[in-house]
Amino acid sequence: MDAKHFDQWVDTSLSAFEAALDGLVPEKAPAGLGEAMRYAALGGGKRLRPLLVLASCAAVGGDGFAAMRAACAVELIHAYSLVHDDMPCMDNDVLRRGKPTTHVKFGEAQAMLAGDAMQALAFEVLTPGDGIAPALQARLCAQLARASGYDGMAGGQAIDLASIGKALDETTLRDMHRRKTGVLLQASVMMGAACGAVPAQATESLSRYGAALGLAFQVVDDILDVTQDSEVLGKTAGKDQDANKPTYVSVLGLEPARQLAQQLRAEAKAALAASGLADVSLLSLLADSVVERVN
Amino acid sequence: MDAKHFDQWVDTSLSAFEAALDGLVPEKAPAGLGEAMRYAALGGGKRLRPLLVLASCAAVGGDGFAAMRAACAVELIHAYSLVHDDMPCMDNDVLRRGKPTTHVKFGEAQAMLAGDAMQALAFEVLTPGDGIAPALQARLCAQLARASGYDGMAGGQAIDLASIGKALDETTLRDMHRRKTGVLLQASVMMGAACGAVPAQATESLSRYGAALGLAFQVVDDILDVTQDSEVLGKTAGKDQDANKPTYVSVLGLEPARQLAQQLRAEAKAALAASGLADVSLLSLLADSVVERVN
Repeated sequence: MDAKHFDQWVDTSLSAFEAALDGLVPEKAPAGLGEAMRYAALGGGKRLRPLLVLASCAAVGGDGFAAMRAACAVELIHAYSLVHDDMPCMDNDVLRRGKPTTHVKFGEAQAMLAGDAMQALAFEVLTPGDGIAPALQARLCAQLARASGYDGMAGGQAIDLASIGKALDETTLRDMHRRKTGVLLQASVMMGAACGAVPAQATESLSRYGAALGLAFQVVDDILDVTQDSEVLGKTAGKDQDANKPTYVSVLGLEPARQLAQQLRAEAKAALAASGLADVSLLSLLADSVVERVN
Repeated sequence: MDAKHFDQWVDTSLSAFEAALDGLVPEKAPAGLGEAMRYAALGGGKRLRPLLVLASCAAVGGDGFAAMRAACAVELIHAYSLVHDDMPCMDNDVLRRGKPTTHVKFGEAQAMLAGDAMQALAFEVLTPGDGIAPALQARLCAQLARASGYDGMAGGQAIDLASIGKALDETTLRDMHRRKTGVLLQASVMMGAACGAVPAQATESLSRYGAALGLAFQVVDDILDVTQDSEVLGKTAGKDQDANKPTYVSVLGLEPARQLAQQLRAEAKAALAASGLADVSLLSLLADSVVERVN
């Protein structure tokens, strides 16, 4: 697949995804809660996780309806985590995707509730009355719950919180980022794969691809935090540095961090090559887009 | 069943429940997160929701392992909602079950993360690798997600938040409480029932029982808030009044509120009688304990 067809696939997929998510996040929820949820969930963003779900499902010839629901669920988890992460007791950030953060717009209490409701909605969209085989519903819920909980995303955020102002070695930094960002990106790949019938070899390869891509994403995030300005990023640049948070750049230095990103891309592609799957081009090009992105 | 045997059933069930929950909430989670989760989840409380799950499962002769997992999941959702509800941006409460609230003990950021991780853990415990049929896992996740999300508990909290200082009529008050407390109590009954094979008539009856009991619980809560002191309640008494929140007592008056609680108990028992189930004595006695409780 060439770059042009990849861009077309991204455009088509994102249009379908945005429409699906728009239909799942309620307009009418009590006392303005729906408005806050929609503000947080439908506010754009890179939508990398949904694209990973859909590309992974395509690679295994899986069930498109289930994959779209999984894409929405993963993005709802990601979006809720941003809402809570931006709150004053956490990162205290006022800008996200170029707009005021949810608590700035709706108040802290409504933002916390909207985040809570978005997490519940993620599991609701994975368990429709029909359209997805019950065993797959259960499998997707299991994957998402583990990736977002104490041993995954929430655990990574706890490490992040405890690490402010501390010197971390690369091993601890890697563990923090694996949990905070990597596990949910990896889960996106594995949930897409779960929508099809996948040989064990391919499952293991996709898991390694997801792990390498997840870490690459965070390394690039740390690089962009110091090399780009807020306008390009759509969020406050240099905030990790300002908050005295350890990053790949502060631990390794800028050039070694860039080399690490390239190495992780190579690892991700090697895993795809070993998967035995016929067409992994979408996943391969998504790895490129993660490493080459500018915001 | 007489009162003595009911008390024995409660004791036995609660021992088994506490052991199960203790085994499911991690001791070792990153950066103290497990400690905060265990503080919030294992700190006691009435455990009404788990008892409803287990009693409902017993009434339908359902799968005990699945019901115990469902009991833990429902209580994790309830416990996380208390952690978030007590935070300064919400009710700003410092006392819960006679102990400092989670954010007072661990800080706001850790409390928010612990609540988030407890919600994820609820869905994790419903989706074990084996021990519960996948279709039942999916059904339980569906029930819990809907009860805790925008159309249930989180939605009720949003109405609660928006209603401070406002005069609500009884219909709006009932809708708020149905969502905020009632839907999760009702879901506890229905999740227990889902662990067995239940005729449609019984399902509908149990749903009505759960709805009446859920509302009765809140009416009694409002009564106790003005008639008991903080020591007996284990939480700050009179706080709804102080916060100028509408309650059944403020809307109806104390004596009509007491009459409503009795009426709802009668509705709950009438629904049980219509269920066609052979032994609903545990559920019936739980309805008594909800209405007759003193804290």
